[in-house]
Amino acid sequence: MTNENVVYVGNKPPMSYVLAVTTQFNNGATEVVLMARGKAISRAVDVAEIVRNRFIPGVQIEKIVTGTEELPRKEGGTTNTSTIEIVLKK
Amino acid sequence: MTNENVVYVGNKPPMSYVLAVTTQFNNGATEVVLMARGKAISRAVDVAEIVRNRFIPGVQIEKIVTGTEELPRKEGGTTNTSTIEIVLKK
Repeated sequence: MTNENVVYVGNKPPMSYVLAVTTQFNNGATEVVLMARGKAISRAVDVAEIVRNRFIPGVQIEKIVTGTEELPRKEGGTTNTSTIEIVLKK
Repeated sequence: MTNENVVYVGNKPPMSYVLAVTTQFNNGATEVVLMARGKAISRAVDVAEIVRNRFIPGVQIEKIVTGTEELPRKEGGTTNTSTIEIVLKK
């Protein structure tokens, strides 16, 4: 068991990520990290809130870190995208 | 000057909120709080990142707190919405 329990949040419905996080905690993880970029950031926050309010009451948000990534654009050049990392701890 | 320098992030382009935050810091505020709900959460993170990376280099994200609000629905009943509060400090 490492500390690298990462769930990448994308465009699926929030509940699929809630399930992924819940499964990791139920398999013995004490820490799960949610990662998201751009518009999926709101969804990552939803997932964190649903997990701690409705699924695993002992879970807390230990840390939230934001950042900026430079992504290449099809047309050339780069575009900046925000990122979020939400560390959930049991 | 109080500590209550709050900028509510909604559906306008990110730059209008960046301007609001920058103005508050330039008027002497040492702390500005970004608040957002639902899909505007990603935009609030964008605003925080743009302010600290491009506009006011001394600004840091001091704290990020998430929460859940129960909002009434037109059809009756309530719906849960995630919230975020990003505390920027100079």
